[in-house]
Amino acid sequence: MKEKIPYSSMSRNDLLDLKIRLEKEFDKYRAKGLKLDMSRGKPSVKQLNLSMGMMDVFHSESDLKCEDGTDCRNYGVIDGIPEAKRLLASIAEVPPEEIMIFGNSSLNVMYDTVSRAYSLGIMGHTPWCKLDSVKFLCPVPGYDRHFKITQEFGIEMINIPMTPEGPDMDLVEKYVNNDPAVKGIWCVPKYSNPTGISYSDETVKRFAKLKPAAEDFRIFWDNAYSVHHLYEDKRDEILEIIEACRKAGRPDMVYKFTSTSKISFPGSGVAAIAASPANLADIEKHVSAQTIGHDKLNQLRHVRFFRDRYGIEAQMRRHADILRPKFEVVEETLERELDGLEIGEWTTPLGGYFISFDSLDGCAKEIVARAAQAGVKMTPAGATFPYGRDPRDRNVRIAPSYPPLEDLRMAAKLFALCVKVVSVEKILDEQEEKMKEAK
Amino acid sequence: MKEKIPYSSMSRNDLLDLKIRLEKEFDKYRAKGLKLDMSRGKPSVKQLNLSMGMMDVFHSESDLKCEDGTDCRNYGVIDGIPEAKRLLASIAEVPPEEIMIFGNSSLNVMYDTVSRAYSLGIMGHTPWCKLDSVKFLCPVPGYDRHFKITQEFGIEMINIPMTPEGPDMDLVEKYVNNDPAVKGIWCVPKYSNPTGISYSDETVKRFAKLKPAAEDFRIFWDNAYSVHHLYEDKRDEILEIIEACRKAGRPDMVYKFTSTSKISFPGSGVAAIAASPANLADIEKHVSAQTIGHDKLNQLRHVRFFRDRYGIEAQMRRHADILRPKFEVVEETLERELDGLEIGEWTTPLGGYFISFDSLDGCAKEIVARAAQAGVKMTPAGATFPYGRDPRDRNVRIAPSYPPLEDLRMAAKLFALCVKVVSVEKILDEQEEKMKEAK
Repeated sequence: MKEKIPYSSMSRNDLLDLKIRLEKEFDKYRAKGLKLDMSRGKPSVKQLNLSMGMMDVFHSESDLKCEDGTDCRNYGVIDGIPEAKRLLASIAEVPPEEIMIFGNSSLNVMYDTVSRAYSLGIMGHTPWCKLDSVKFLCPVPGYDRHFKITQEFGIEMINIPMTPEGPDMDLVEKYVNNDPAVKGIWCVPKYSNPTGISYSDETVKRFAKLKPAAEDFRIFWDNAYSVHHLYEDKRDEILEIIEACRKAGRPDMVYKFTSTSKISFPGSGVAAIAASPANLADIEKHVSAQTIGHDKLNQLRHVRFFRDRYGIEAQMRRHADILRPKFEVVEETLERELDGLEIGEWTTPLGGYFISFDSLDGCAKEIVARAAQAGVKMTPAGATFPYGRDPRDRNVRIAPSYPPLEDLRMAAKLFALCVKVVSVEKILDEQEEKMKEAK
Repeated sequence: MKEKIPYSSMSRNDLLDLKIRLEKEFDKYRAKGLKLDMSRGKPSVKQLNLSMGMMDVFHSESDLKCEDGTDCRNYGVIDGIPEAKRLLASIAEVPPEEIMIFGNSSLNVMYDTVSRAYSLGIMGHTPWCKLDSVKFLCPVPGYDRHFKITQEFGIEMINIPMTPEGPDMDLVEKYVNNDPAVKGIWCVPKYSNPTGISYSDETVKRFAKLKPAAEDFRIFWDNAYSVHHLYEDKRDEILEIIEACRKAGRPDMVYKFTSTSKISFPGSGVAAIAASPANLADIEKHVSAQTIGHDKLNQLRHVRFFRDRYGIEAQMRRHADILRPKFEVVEETLERELDGLEIGEWTTPLGGYFISFDSLDGCAKEIVARAAQAGVKMTPAGATFPYGRDPRDRNVRIAPSYPPLEDLRMAAKLFALCVKVVSVEKILDEQEEKMKEAK
């Protein structure tokens, strides 16, 4: 196992030899003409099949009234049918009074929430579009589509490093409590995208105890993976943020987002926002100008299929049975191929949809480019940072959910190979730089 | 038929007698404790039943791929699946390349379109939120929810009187071609809400020939009732506005909105926007920050149920068979009760969802209030005007679609009675005023 010493300890000649061997291996892969995709957190076909029973819950003779007698086929009901509120509230871990049901996508709800704050203002505060400066804190690495929303509205994004406990709360407190231009922070508190980190109780408590300089500061708490565990016996659970904020005397400081996208069907699920009654009233006032109501038939379809929280949990175990081996094959492959080489670190999350990989500084873009050359599509390097700019060019998000297990084994191996190739080149280049400087 | 002379020609004593008789009749109605609703353009239960077959098109073994092989259960496809584009394009009377599919509600699409223009700007133009003054032209009477959207964004609304040919185009041209603050106009060009008027060819051509002072001026062409005819043999058809604009050299001047809300299920239909390729590219750029895609399963469900334009037309004939007698019973009742009294005028539309009633000036609020007292809910008076202010307080929107036929007969009779009661009071009051002045 010649490779099992750190690359940085190898002699130049050994590295040059290694480079030749790796390039040869890479060419072999390239010749295979692979077409694999580890770029997006998409459920696999097997996972989608888990919800096909939902197609049988309605038929042409079905009674499509919800429990309060409303005909779900007609106009109306701005905040969602009662049983859907209960179901989504159970996922969001809030009482049904604290939830409002939306359409098919929580991303859309988040976008609209930023959009409303920007153009109309939150609870009577000055709309952000009328301010000279609006800033958002962005724990990094994070979710590219969050950052795209704030970028769209010209909001300045500030990187906040992630720690194993969540965002660096010293920094968060410094910004939020002192700068009135800081209006929000993007959070994926559980099985975070892409690191898989879940916020510690201490972190959630510090969030709840923030004393924002801006009264209309809001925590954008995207609880995308609240029930998305990979293991039965090892699970992260986090403190409920709305209750924590209420206890700390700031009940209105947080918007919590959730959806069934990765429970039933992505794009055909049900999304919701959980928040304080005052926040919900403010939101509903504006949403009632935007729509007469969201798709109640889809709400009812979900409730009739899942029934309740237990139905959701049973479904999530089935998802986990499909996802777990995929995470494990990637983790095992990275372990086998890269352990001890000191050219990369990666996460082994207990839930969510991603493995986060950190290469040597300055290698991520090239690794992703190499993988693409050999037919493996990864999330673009930099995507996990605001403006697509990873200051150390080292983070790569690995999404193991979509490809079949066998493809994934191949894709992970190729990815590891790309990491090796690029790392060797990087180390050789650096040695050369140093030699030049020495001259 | 003592009542069949105009109220205004009646002697004061006759009017006072009449008032007493009418009040007695009104009290009889009130005693019945009715609960009827003619307030919103909601399809009836019978109409909803027409689409129940849609619940059978999918089952747990269905192939849910669309024609290009995309699995409609998963993420993706920002602009809609090809067959849904074709279906909605056939309703919107545009080629499939000129359409983009959205979620469950065209109102939501219109709101979002105004919202984007407000916060992000149209095609690189200054966002409206950065301008001191933004104005919209509002043909009146019009659709309350249109006006609510522009009101929400603080846009100044200017009333444009409707003529039998459509909006007063002299006024429209004057405003649009000279005032760069005028950024849009709300139009329901076919079977207009609430007047039922369809724009003449001449009107559409004059729209297309507008020379807006503002480059980002857009016609908001809400083609809500494009296939919503009441009769087989008498139908309004209007010129296709996007083509007309293109021919006139301004292909980007119009956004056209449509949906299946009143074809399949309100709240669970499919909405779309039709526009020039440049407009669609501009919209898609922003929408791709807002969502990964709309509900493709619902798109596919609609296509599998309706198949094509012919399926839509067949369905609309079934709707018409249910709606037509309802319109006719209201029209007959108004005719029988009010003709010759010169206390009101009403429309007899060939399609759409509404009958528009104009009372004597200053009577609409009181008529609606009286109807409510006797248990018949009408659209609030004034709702058909921006800011809810009908300058002449005379327009009442009658929505005959929802109540069963027998209820409707009763509701229409009661409405006519309220018109009589209030008109008599009004005429008596005016006589009193005049007598006072004469003293």
